[in-house]
Amino acid sequence: MHALNVQLAERSYPVLVGSGLLGRADTWTPYIPGRQVLVVTNEVVEPLWLGRLQSGLGEFDVRVVVLPDGERYKTLETLSVVFDALAEHGFHRDASILALGGGVVGDIAGFAAACWQRGIAVIQAPTTLLAQVDASVGGKTAVNHPAGKNLIGSFHQPRAVVADVDALATLPDREYRAGLGEVIKYGLGLDAGLFGWLETSLPDLLSRDPVTLERAVYWCCALKAEVVAGDERESGRRALLNLGHTFGHAIETAAGYEGLLHGEAVATGLVMASRLAVELGEMSPADRDRVEALVIAAGLSPAPPKLGAHRLKSLMGMDKKIAAGRLRLVVPEGIGRSRLRDDVPEALLDAVLAEADPDG
Amino acid sequence: MHALNVQLAERSYPVLVGSGLLGRADTWTPYIPGRQVLVVTNEVVEPLWLGRLQSGLGEFDVRVVVLPDGERYKTLETLSVVFDALAEHGFHRDASILALGGGVVGDIAGFAAACWQRGIAVIQAPTTLLAQVDASVGGKTAVNHPAGKNLIGSFHQPRAVVADVDALATLPDREYRAGLGEVIKYGLGLDAGLFGWLETSLPDLLSRDPVTLERAVYWCCALKAEVVAGDERESGRRALLNLGHTFGHAIETAAGYEGLLHGEAVATGLVMASRLAVELGEMSPADRDRVEALVIAAGLSPAPPKLGAHRLKSLMGMDKKIAAGRLRLVVPEGIGRSRLRDDVPEALLDAVLAEADPDG
Repeated sequence: MHALNVQLAERSYPVLVGSGLLGRADTWTPYIPGRQVLVVTNEVVEPLWLGRLQSGLGEFDVRVVVLPDGERYKTLETLSVVFDALAEHGFHRDASILALGGGVVGDIAGFAAACWQRGIAVIQAPTTLLAQVDASVGGKTAVNHPAGKNLIGSFHQPRAVVADVDALATLPDREYRAGLGEVIKYGLGLDAGLFGWLETSLPDLLSRDPVTLERAVYWCCALKAEVVAGDERESGRRALLNLGHTFGHAIETAAGYEGLLHGEAVATGLVMASRLAVELGEMSPADRDRVEALVIAAGLSPAPPKLGAHRLKSLMGMDKKIAAGRLRLVVPEGIGRSRLRDDVPEALLDAVLAEADPDG
Repeated sequence: MHALNVQLAERSYPVLVGSGLLGRADTWTPYIPGRQVLVVTNEVVEPLWLGRLQSGLGEFDVRVVVLPDGERYKTLETLSVVFDALAEHGFHRDASILALGGGVVGDIAGFAAACWQRGIAVIQAPTTLLAQVDASVGGKTAVNHPAGKNLIGSFHQPRAVVADVDALATLPDREYRAGLGEVIKYGLGLDAGLFGWLETSLPDLLSRDPVTLERAVYWCCALKAEVVAGDERESGRRALLNLGHTFGHAIETAAGYEGLLHGEAVATGLVMASRLAVELGEMSPADRDRVEALVIAAGLSPAPPKLGAHRLKSLMGMDKKIAAGRLRLVVPEGIGRSRLRDDVPEALLDAVLAEADPDG
């Protein structure tokens, strides 16, 4: 088991990465205040991992709410279901929520914890690769609005993040590969060493070798912890974690949160951002080719679905990463470095988006 | 005009109390970042004060959302209406919400600002006495759940609070008197000087003499600012501001948020808390009589509606002011001082609640 700490003064918390964590009482006891625990999970994860978790939570008063599976349920309506469960079981200020699932479960459960009685404890137990390497660390919580992803939410740091890599064994192949999109993001945006390691370790990652998995998850969490510790509220460097996400969110929203997984959209966004970087003269075509090759090798699509360039551009305008009416975009500067820019010429953006046109 | 500051480090903000503030551009300009402003108001306040406000907001891009009036609309559904307006008008991270109305408008608008894009600016422009002296200062925001008041919310400090006492002139008499319930709370719980001043100044307050009003609002805001500055998240002294509220919330919830205003319920709660204090030996019967007399003189009821002692007690158990299963109650210790207690014998509580029984 690897452990690291997200340093946020009185809101600091550990990230535990390892095997066999879910079912052990000593995983949970140090981080759960009070006795009441509401486990929030979904219909897919529940039959696979809830029993294991419950054997680790034997000493607590545990209630469970099972949500439907999928990004399209990351709504105020589903959030309301969690509030109803908290109310029904009489959950007080010293109660905790434990999120067992992927990014959607973690976002909804975390946001519910942020709001219930103006803030109760949440522990994140991510079961997908995407959630283990990204969504569960850093305290961002949200639900979607028809106008855009994550438009309604808050910052609410968990008491602990427990990434049991055993859970990745039961992940459907497509969802697993989508998670690799976020893993590649860390390499491209922040760490050339990670990117190079991914290029050579991809076969072991694709076969879900446990040791390789633990290393990949730990590496990404360490990068994220360092960024979040320096910029909890995303006023600076944390925005770099949105590499590929402005394109990706627009693609997801245009696709109606159906048919496309978040990590898949992000992977495509990484390639689009790299193409933009080449247009801007910030990246060599050879490095862009490495990004494309790694995305393709991970079984992900380097090109956006034909959703229309104009539509995507308009959705990017509604994206949160906007300040004073100017589009802000994270652009790679070669592999392993990136920068937030608000001076991207519209014509270059159009050139990259043209690929999303049906006749592009 | 009086001004004071709520001292919360980088979240500090001013409270302006005076006449003619709503319509002046220099009231708003220093506190509104960006150009987009969503005014959230309700159907009662809009025809009375929106025009005045808009003349002060001439330089901004102003949109308006008008909510239905009443505590029963302080729900997730109404919150969703505000989110839809923010989305429809393409509100970005540098946009602001301006809450023009009473406590319900302020709570919904503040909570919407807390959540939109994980937090945008909110300016509180309270138009009721209750909101001017209490709800608008301190950053508590929330909506109700059928299981209890303010169960879903967050702490989100405003950029400024603008209490224009002119707005109190159009307040219906009943709502005005309800606001006096909160004013009396400050005197009973925190400041014997204020309580004594209220006993002598009540005729001027009831006739809404502007100078007396400005003094009352400023006095209460100064007390609240001092308490909030010392305990933003209510881990200690801020809980004293809940004097009368545990009883009051239970009464409101039992009444279904209909037929009873918040300040009316709080006023009754103050008398119930004083009776409990007499039972506990913390207060003299003479002081309790002063509380009852002031509540009655303000046109408020010292006795709870006949909603059932058992029902109220059970609702008090669902109240937020609970820690580890023990009922925590603010109890006056004479006039001008109060203390949070978790050791109130159940029999004494029952004795006070008995008055709510149909045959009590």
